[in-house]
Amino acid sequence: MSEKVRIALDTMGGDHGPPVTVAGAELALERHPGTEFIFFGNASLIAPLLDARPQLKALSRLVHTDVAVRMEDKPSQALRYGRWKSSMWLAIDAVKKGEADMALSGGNTGALMAMSKFNLRTLPGIERPAIAALWPTLRGESVVLDVGASIGADADHLVDLAVIGAATARILFGLDRPTVGLLNIGVEEVKGLEEVREAGRILREENFPHLDYRGFVEGDDIGRGKVDVVVTEGFAGNIALKAAEGTARQIGEYLRAAMTRSLSAKIGYLFARAAFRQLRERMDPRRANGGVFLGLNGIVIKSHGGSDAEGFAAAIELGHGVVRNELLDKIKAALGRPHRPRSQNTRHSGGQGAPHAVSGATS
Amino acid sequence: MSEKVRIALDTMGGDHGPPVTVAGAELALERHPGTEFIFFGNASLIAPLLDARPQLKALSRLVHTDVAVRMEDKPSQALRYGRWKSSMWLAIDAVKKGEADMALSGGNTGALMAMSKFNLRTLPGIERPAIAALWPTLRGESVVLDVGASIGADADHLVDLAVIGAATARILFGLDRPTVGLLNIGVEEVKGLEEVREAGRILREENFPHLDYRGFVEGDDIGRGKVDVVVTEGFAGNIALKAAEGTARQIGEYLRAAMTRSLSAKIGYLFARAAFRQLRERMDPRRANGGVFLGLNGIVIKSHGGSDAEGFAAAIELGHGVVRNELLDKIKAALGRPHRPRSQNTRHSGGQGAPHAVSGATS
Repeated sequence: MSEKVRIALDTMGGDHGPPVTVAGAELALERHPGTEFIFFGNASLIAPLLDARPQLKALSRLVHTDVAVRMEDKPSQALRYGRWKSSMWLAIDAVKKGEADMALSGGNTGALMAMSKFNLRTLPGIERPAIAALWPTLRGESVVLDVGASIGADADHLVDLAVIGAATARILFGLDRPTVGLLNIGVEEVKGLEEVREAGRILREENFPHLDYRGFVEGDDIGRGKVDVVVTEGFAGNIALKAAEGTARQIGEYLRAAMTRSLSAKIGYLFARAAFRQLRERMDPRRANGGVFLGLNGIVIKSHGGSDAEGFAAAIELGHGVVRNELLDKIKAALGRPHRPRSQNTRHSGGQGAPHAVSGATS
Repeated sequence: MSEKVRIALDTMGGDHGPPVTVAGAELALERHPGTEFIFFGNASLIAPLLDARPQLKALSRLVHTDVAVRMEDKPSQALRYGRWKSSMWLAIDAVKKGEADMALSGGNTGALMAMSKFNLRTLPGIERPAIAALWPTLRGESVVLDVGASIGADADHLVDLAVIGAATARILFGLDRPTVGLLNIGVEEVKGLEEVREAGRILREENFPHLDYRGFVEGDDIGRGKVDVVVTEGFAGNIALKAAEGTARQIGEYLRAAMTRSLSAKIGYLFARAAFRQLRERMDPRRANGGVFLGLNGIVIKSHGGSDAEGFAAAIELGHGVVRNELLDKIKAALGRPHRPRSQNTRHSGGQGAPHAVSGATS
């Protein structure tokens, strides 16, 4: 891998398009001078933005395409009109061809996952990719996955998620044997979904060398940092992530209201300004922006569609960490062990039912 | 209904037992003098606590039983040894017999739901009861259900939840036509689970008179107060609730740390003390303690097992509101309309699969 990190940007992705993605790239470049960009998208929109940023322009390449994936389309529709030629596809393709170390998009999650899977393929032994989030906790950060790549998971898929998630935590957090928990409702062994219980049984019995399985965890254990890796299927994972983000935003509003309510509160705010700034940074959901697609032959990062430039920059920085630490090679190595037999009895055994394809992915 | 609110307490329920439940009752009595209590549980533990609180004792009755439901037991086990004689059963039975207006327990949720269902029975047309939470939002409060009574829901059950939830919001918030959203991942109609989509179709087509269906909502829309009623199956609902509670607690920790970090922050804190107190109250997850069991012929309230006396008092106060507003009669009236045909094609149609019984309930 070169010293530089080369990023392929779906410049048209996200609710705000090029003005935000280009500005985000500029912010990321300030923080990480060793970055090069390939901007894919409508040149007539992107070129003026780069002209206004000569430093960024000097380290960038612009590849024009007229086709952009729409937020509201199904993955199958997006694949039909967007394959080979959309800005999203071309960004992923740059990773495939080795021209970029990672692809980044704030666009339609389902389409991004479908195109990534179609073009990059999944790693050997992995059936479905996942989206991992870095969740800020009281102890630091935890890897939470899947936060929306697909709905429903059988026991084998949950075990795959545990293995990939643990490999990611090893690399990003420098841990030898990250602790892993299965997200459930109630910590007692008797509770929860059939497939979650079965996954727990497999994880306990297999006793993987680089994964310390700690049993079930509940929604409030995530922020507590009870385990390094929280494993769940994508529907519940996405709802947990967004409920937490919503709560952080809500409390931020309360805080603003409280600190402007009276004169003495305003004076207090002035004295505690620096503390508030630090607090705001820790609470800022933009800082945790960016989900890593795991289980693919290549690195793809999804930014929130509604992110501003700051959020986009955070997603680029997350990609930096992932690429510099050679996450992909290390996940491959973790998966390279003699393959465990798939459990036969849990597949489609009620509970969450048959796995859905990426049509369930979130935006 | 009498002017007084009569509360049957499973005094043994919760992680801390009688010292917390009795102290919680005392706090609630201070705030609502029109309350009477029946304490069910071990008299040798409870009587001294009442002796120390003469005012509470004067308004209370103590019914001794040796049997208490254990937190770790399955609902079926709890029913086996706890039916007819446990403190939990007796509290529910007091509601059945009309001796109390509501039962309250901080004990094993699955057992509480199983006993409530067994003894009180569900309302006509309701197959499975639900647990509703009052979720603090930027606009006030929303009803969120189901937050853990059962795992998985077909389209019909989600529609039932919408109807019961809307009736609850009408009564508690005084709204004529509460807005209702289905919790999903991604707002586009193409996304999400089969049964959630189907429930959306039914709600749109039926156009219920006292329910304004607004489509899908995401996890971060709950705290925003986008709709008055958020409908989801119990696994995702429980995880959302606990993830939000965990985040509130986490930010509280950040705030404490930030405000003691430097001298000027400490001075700022002193000036803004009143504002911080208000903020703390709004962020306090104990204030939102208490889930209402809906869909039963009687009012049962579940407190968090780990609550302190303050949290227990909040759960009692929630019950006050529910009882005084005659929630049960009004839900019955809402369900009393000519019964809509059940959709045949959605039951067990993949996705979340077959509904599980209360064995999936949370503690």
